[in-house]
Amino acid sequence: MTDTPPKALAAKALLPTGLRDLLPPDAEHEAQVVGRLLKEFHRHGYERVKPPLVEFEEGLLSGSAASLANQTFRIMDPVSQRMMGVRSDMTPQVARIATTRLRKAPRPLRLSYAGQVLRVKGSSLRQERQFGQVGVELIGPDRAEADAEIILLAASALSSVGAKGISIDLTVPTLVPAVARALSLSDDDYARLRAALDHRDAAAVADAAGPHAPLFLSILNASGPAPAAVERLSAVDLPDVAKAARQELADVVRLIAAAAPGLSVTIDPVEMRGFEYQTGVSFTIFARGVRGELGRGGRYRTGGADPVGEPATGFTLYTDTVLRALPGPSPVKRVLLPLGTDYAEAQALRAQGWHTVAAMGAPGDLVAEAKRLSCSHLLTADGPTPV
Amino acid sequence: MTDTPPKALAAKALLPTGLRDLLPPDAEHEAQVVGRLLKEFHRHGYERVKPPLVEFEEGLLSGSAASLANQTFRIMDPVSQRMMGVRSDMTPQVARIATTRLRKAPRPLRLSYAGQVLRVKGSSLRQERQFGQVGVELIGPDRAEADAEIILLAASALSSVGAKGISIDLTVPTLVPAVARALSLSDDDYARLRAALDHRDAAAVADAAGPHAPLFLSILNASGPAPAAVERLSAVDLPDVAKAARQELADVVRLIAAAAPGLSVTIDPVEMRGFEYQTGVSFTIFARGVRGELGRGGRYRTGGADPVGEPATGFTLYTDTVLRALPGPSPVKRVLLPLGTDYAEAQALRAQGWHTVAAMGAPGDLVAEAKRLSCSHLLTADGPTPV
Repeated sequence: MTDTPPKALAAKALLPTGLRDLLPPDAEHEAQVVGRLLKEFHRHGYERVKPPLVEFEEGLLSGSAASLANQTFRIMDPVSQRMMGVRSDMTPQVARIATTRLRKAPRPLRLSYAGQVLRVKGSSLRQERQFGQVGVELIGPDRAEADAEIILLAASALSSVGAKGISIDLTVPTLVPAVARALSLSDDDYARLRAALDHRDAAAVADAAGPHAPLFLSILNASGPAPAAVERLSAVDLPDVAKAARQELADVVRLIAAAAPGLSVTIDPVEMRGFEYQTGVSFTIFARGVRGELGRGGRYRTGGADPVGEPATGFTLYTDTVLRALPGPSPVKRVLLPLGTDYAEAQALRAQGWHTVAAMGAPGDLVAEAKRLSCSHLLTADGPTPV
Repeated sequence: MTDTPPKALAAKALLPTGLRDLLPPDAEHEAQVVGRLLKEFHRHGYERVKPPLVEFEEGLLSGSAASLANQTFRIMDPVSQRMMGVRSDMTPQVARIATTRLRKAPRPLRLSYAGQVLRVKGSSLRQERQFGQVGVELIGPDRAEADAEIILLAASALSSVGAKGISIDLTVPTLVPAVARALSLSDDDYARLRAALDHRDAAAVADAAGPHAPLFLSILNASGPAPAAVERLSAVDLPDVAKAARQELADVVRLIAAAAPGLSVTIDPVEMRGFEYQTGVSFTIFARGVRGELGRGGRYRTGGADPVGEPATGFTLYTDTVLRALPGPSPVKRVLLPLGTDYAEAQALRAQGWHTVAAMGAPGDLVAEAKRLSCSHLLTADGPTPV
């Protein structure tokens, strides 16, 4: 149904970079997929919240959300004369709701959300400046069962909308920092080591780690498909303070394997990028053959009145990437109704699942008219008839 | 689940005036209602489009949308260095899509949409500065069947979500101006007459209309329940140029009565407020006992490349008012799963329609735990058991 507009319309039609119209049938498909994801979340006990599109800047960008400051559009509120921000991420909003209005709601608190966010600039991975987020937060419990629950939920929700080849890439972003602290690495050495690990550059890791090279190389090598990689990581002689992080990872892997033995899980224990505020097991979700991540999540603390906050974990799926991992929408049964078709008869067809399209004139060739309007059927005296 | 936060949290929890969080179960209920409205639109052949939250200002506020200028938040686009606006109404966006990207899509073009809009200030009728719109546009046909189709669709969609006592208040905002032009009323007299009609003030109408007082009073009196009011309007001796507008109204009333004889339809032929850009039969939707309008719509022209544009009609429902006209959400069957419940068993319960809540510990009293977490059931060896 798309068409390039003539020059006279081009200026009006042009949207800012990174913003776009979703047209039929994509807009409907996206809404259906988001609805089915939320339904799956709901079935697991997650209840929906809906924060507003804009909030006061200091609320929207407090705590760990401060990193969003230069991705957030600001607008002046003429009522309060204070600055507001248009949300660039919904997860801090949901954490705010959990720690304020739902502060006394029973824990574990399971919340879900879906909505649009807006960013000042696109990135090389995501050029869109508006995209949809849909996700959950599980607030209260600090145990491997909670981490496993949300990972299994991400996988089952994606499966419920038809995604194939899902894989979960697990990490504990607190592991490497704990090892570095135990070994009293200097800030400079640690920074070099982090950069080398980020690039998975074994030679640079060996160089930066000096006498500790064998240890960090063995952590780097404990990556890959879950059972084997966890075994390799278990064999590493970690400092005591890092053992808890490793144990969390092993527990989560074990719980996932027991519940969903077919789910593809990989381990990447040196992955820390984008998990700066995570405090435990964290993960990225991919689909085979799909560029970019479908979503990410992990353990964190909510903040709020108590600066330490509550233990929490959650994930966000990006609807644009999720849609790329799915087959297209199924065609609907669409029937053209000749002008003057009885209203009750049309209602009866719709109740049977037909999509009805009322002719707005009396064309000589109703079959041609049905085809022109993308109808699969025409209503005749014999009922809906394929065209 | 709500609670007033302590003072320390109050600042962070506070949202700007007219903006709010929707909490469980309201957020889910709203989403369900919007989804069911769109499903009903889809069954009538309306296909969804999804314009972005922000657009360039000149696109967003062109033509009849210029009246939205002082209700629209502006933000600078750092990429283009041009001003963008956050949408305050989705209908101009949908008309833009119809006249640009879907310019060559076959007519009649039936589009639907749903989304959030943001306004600079609330009004006395709607204090919210963010609210949801959900609606349709029918572009191309200029005939009473199109007007009747969308009015019947609004009524059937609202009925599909459980709204009771719906009534449609019909007008033709072009009728009075046509009469005034035919009688060559001066601008001053016409302005006085409009004000008097807006207030339904018969004495002021008589005063402003001078020698034409009987004519305008007979139009004013042709209001009320549809069949009788249309008959009274038909008896009025209108100037020829105003007869077409009256005929449109009568045709639409006849088509609606034939299709949905039980639908409450009233006529208010002097109603023009808020229909400044409408070019034919227009309407407001109310529900008995609900303050404010559930939605409004009417005939207009799309604008676009051709300044005259295409004939079109459509309506928008306001989700906040619609929700006030509905019964609350139905409770769900929620079952607490003791820690360690087999994953496959939990999946089977969810497939049967249960909402499962996994216990995140081993409390001594699982029945009390189920109640604490608002579960209606607890999973025992006998299956889900009421608590």
